Amino acid sequence: MLIIGENISITSKIVGDSIRNRDAEPIVKMARAQKEAGAHYVDVNIGPATKNGEELMQWVVKTIQSEVDVPLALDTKNMSAIEAGLEVHKGTAMINSVTGDQDKLDILMPMVKKYKTKIVGIALSEKGVPPDVDSRIEVIMNIVNSAMEIGVPLSDLYLDPIVLPVAVLQQQVFNCIEGLKAFKQLKDLMGLPEEPKTIVGLSNVSQSSPPQLKSLLNRTYLAILLSHGLDSAIFDPLDRELMNVVKTFDILTNRILYAHSYLEK
Amino acid sequence: MLIIGENISITSKIVGDSIRNRDAEPIVKMARAQKEAGAHYVDVNIGPATKNGEELMQWVVKTIQSEVDVPLALDTKNMSAIEAGLEVHKGTAMINSVTGDQDKLDILMPMVKKYKTKIVGIALSEKGVPPDVDSRIEVIMNIVNSAMEIGVPLSDLYLDPIVLPVAVLQQQVFNCIEGLKAFKQLKDLMGLPEEPKTIVGLSNVSQSSPPQLKSLLNRTYLAILLSHGLDSAIFDPLDRELMNVVKTFDILTNRILYAHSYLEK
Repeated sequence: MLIIGENISITSKIVGDSIRNRDAEPIVKMARAQKEAGAHYVDVNIGPATKNGEELMQWVVKTIQSEVDVPLALDTKNMSAIEAGLEVHKGTAMINSVTGDQDKLDILMPMVKKYKTKIVGIALSEKGVPPDVDSRIEVIMNIVNSAMEIGVPLSDLYLDPIVLPVAVLQQQVFNCIEGLKAFKQLKDLMGLPEEPKTIVGLSNVSQSSPPQLKSLLNRTYLAILLSHGLDSAIFDPLDRELMNVVKTFDILTNRILYAHSYLEK
Repeated sequence: MLIIGENISITSKIVGDSIRNRDAEPIVKMARAQKEAGAHYVDVNIGPATKNGEELMQWVVKTIQSEVDVPLALDTKNMSAIEAGLEVHKGTAMINSVTGDQDKLDILMPMVKKYKTKIVGIALSEKGVPPDVDSRIEVIMNIVNSAMEIGVPLSDLYLDPIVLPVAVLQQQVFNCIEGLKAFKQLKDLMGLPEEPKTIVGLSNVSQSSPPQLKSLLNRTYLAILLSHGLDSAIFDPLDRELMNVVKTFDILTNRILYAHSYLEK
């Protein structure tokens, strides 16, 4: 599975200070630690970034990539900050994320094509989180269509059925599993060349749950979602027990050859 | 899910001594602990029991049930010991297990009907473990047919796709997942009134793996199998982390209402 490290987010004080003060060390350290723990991408969430967003994103991208050889998932609602980041990004970037809103699709999909990036398409419309599985499928079909029309390869699109906190919206957590299964079936429904890829923001599931439950909820949910074909997730790769589940899943489903030492790889 | 505690097995020295010396306390204690930890059934594996098997099984059944109110899964290849156990068993017993061999089916299925028990039907033929998923399905179809013919309710039959050690036969561990999915599809294939129930002997998966991997392998495999519709499993209910996965699975799939204290129930 494609693992995207979630730890560089402006919502954390360390990251916020680091970015505001243009202090490279903390975010470089976090990027390196996540890569070493097994992340294939490192998410950089710079928040709404309404002021100087372009310069800010470029600084973050250049700062991390000058020290750590890792591709980044650019995470902000400021679309011109995304493009500024792409201009200086080395390797295949990821855009996190686009909703089903047509005006956003019209701006971001051409960017995906131009810069040959990956993109997360999230089952969210201008009205918010769709209440049921069918409305999520509708939003996602619009995103897939938009990608196809402009010639973005399906393999660069990651569909997100939206994970919500089980402590607050338990039914929605189940809907997300059903959504994931349904997204995989879009291959037949839409006549796609292959099954679309899927992604989740895993730790949302344990938001608002007590600290001692978080890792257990995250890793059990991950095993369930992987069983239903999840291809990628955004989570904390420094959670050793979570990474152990990823490795053990690959062992049990015969994707990686078993060795007594498989956890150490 | 239906949880069957695996701990009373003659392969353990404490249990072996307890049974040989007709020393009630150890096995009564183990039965009680497993029930309190959440087991719905307690498996009693008395081995081949070629000598005095009938008397032995009756002693075990009466000894446990006189102290602990829990139904038992009678586990031995000695079929007259099984019947002797059923004669004195209170409540709905389970027979663990019957293979696809016709001579065994001809003896055990009438017993299931007469004593109104549950039974585990295991995808094993006289030739041993079937090498591929298709041969497992063939064996299982024969077991299902045998139950149907004699009038054993499908809901009393638990189909076991055979879990084998990942350290030795990794491909077979994957085949077991595929087998489980296929058994569920027998509803359509055989025109059954409902999906057949499934069961596994979970800890087989981690046999021959180092101690520090066992619980991780067991609980990750359990989450995968539950995701594919597993209804029951034989395992150690005293493994707290394993039981936490069972409870968390039920929370995430909306079967039990979430509360911050759900693990304590």
